[in-house]
Amino acid sequence: MKQITSKSNAYIKNIRQLKKKKFRDETGNYYLEGLRLIGEALRTDTNLESILYCSDLLKSEFGWQAIKIAEEKGIEIIEVTEEVFQTFSLKEGSQGLAAVGKQKWNDLHELLAPEGLWIVLDNIQDPGNLGTIMRSLDGAGGKGLIFVGNSTDAYHPTAVRSSTGALFSLNICKTTQQKLIEWKKNSSIAFIGTVCESANSYKLCDYPENMVLIMGSEQKGLQKEVIAICDELITIPMGGSVDSLNLACAASIVLFEIYDKRNRI
Amino acid sequence: MKQITSKSNAYIKNIRQLKKKKFRDETGNYYLEGLRLIGEALRTDTNLESILYCSDLLKSEFGWQAIKIAEEKGIEIIEVTEEVFQTFSLKEGSQGLAAVGKQKWNDLHELLAPEGLWIVLDNIQDPGNLGTIMRSLDGAGGKGLIFVGNSTDAYHPTAVRSSTGALFSLNICKTTQQKLIEWKKNSSIAFIGTVCESANSYKLCDYPENMVLIMGSEQKGLQKEVIAICDELITIPMGGSVDSLNLACAASIVLFEIYDKRNRI
Repeated sequence: MKQITSKSNAYIKNIRQLKKKKFRDETGNYYLEGLRLIGEALRTDTNLESILYCSDLLKSEFGWQAIKIAEEKGIEIIEVTEEVFQTFSLKEGSQGLAAVGKQKWNDLHELLAPEGLWIVLDNIQDPGNLGTIMRSLDGAGGKGLIFVGNSTDAYHPTAVRSSTGALFSLNICKTTQQKLIEWKKNSSIAFIGTVCESANSYKLCDYPENMVLIMGSEQKGLQKEVIAICDELITIPMGGSVDSLNLACAASIVLFEIYDKRNRI
Repeated sequence: MKQITSKSNAYIKNIRQLKKKKFRDETGNYYLEGLRLIGEALRTDTNLESILYCSDLLKSEFGWQAIKIAEEKGIEIIEVTEEVFQTFSLKEGSQGLAAVGKQKWNDLHELLAPEGLWIVLDNIQDPGNLGTIMRSLDGAGGKGLIFVGNSTDAYHPTAVRSSTGALFSLNICKTTQQKLIEWKKNSSIAFIGTVCESANSYKLCDYPENMVLIMGSEQKGLQKEVIAICDELITIPMGGSVDSLNLACAASIVLFEIYDKRNRI
């Protein structure tokens, strides 16, 4: 077991850099923190490069068990001082357990006959919303997420945290708008687009078994090129004075309508 | 029209203090920022004490119109320098328009025969979730929110922002658990509690016309004293590997099921 006591150790410096998308892209790594998240990563056999802990902060028996399990899986275990831990920790009241994971991206074009429920996110920016959408998608029995364009990435620390581990169970792909359009032509999956303007209510849609739900950003909605390849457009009828819903809430409302229709007895 | 050019002006200092709950509680004021939010506050005749703008930052015609409307309503207009504006602004890429609002709390015990759809939030902590719940509640035609216990307050800047103005259209009350229990005895409104454990699906509930939906925090759920006064408990059936949903997403799923049942033709 390795010990690091210096804040300027090269490996520790790199962990701090994982907050930046550029560095995550370059290394293919990402940062995760907390008992629940790391427990879930281990449970799902998620590829972790290292686990970092601080014995002054780690008070939980579950946390010590997690370290033992990680060691048995051959993951590098690194003990750090509290001072070192606080230089990369993103949590107030940290539990003293963090990890470096290896990103896992699936190739969209290998998915010629995708099954089940997927989401396409077109240019969405908020990593908190993204993580929350992963959590709801997993809860609704979904298979995976496809990012299009300049979407925030699934391995942003805020997205990882707010996914509460759903990230580890989902297939994650990224692609361009043009490649998505090609993929749609070659695969048999249905595209259901969500829009704010007039369309059928999401309650009235007969969601196909194999489908992608397509959502755009709160500001811009779906781009017209994406709307053009949708098999059906749906909307969430609303009252009140607000003109739209939070993106993760809107996604959840539709996802759980789909979940209910699939699981209704 | 007043002009302030000093960061240490007493009024500007007070605005910065509005980030703190204690200061908001003492003064009964709150801080809001951005074109959309201030436009909505003016549209709904929300009580504003002052509007602050910075002409170097305010590029939008809509923003200048808002200032004119505010002036006609007798709201104090204060021009500040960019340096001053940045000391209290909470937005990256600020639009140069902010305001101080007067909090408006309704007395729960005056609501003896409350009508329509309400939410009770029991000890919820995350202001972003809270704002998002207000947005969804308004979108689902809801009337108001009742905070119980140590909930984060509706006038936290993050809650105000993520409500996208729903805050201005809803009735907001706060109370204690004991007073909520008394209120329930004296009013005819139905209490529907949401829980994670086994209960009827939210899809199967016959939501009464006048009801409160009761939600607890993600960590702790509903307290047993609150569960005891519920007329019905509901849950959201789930699949996947996650064990719960984000609170605002869960609230939205149930709220829009209620909205659909009320508005189905």
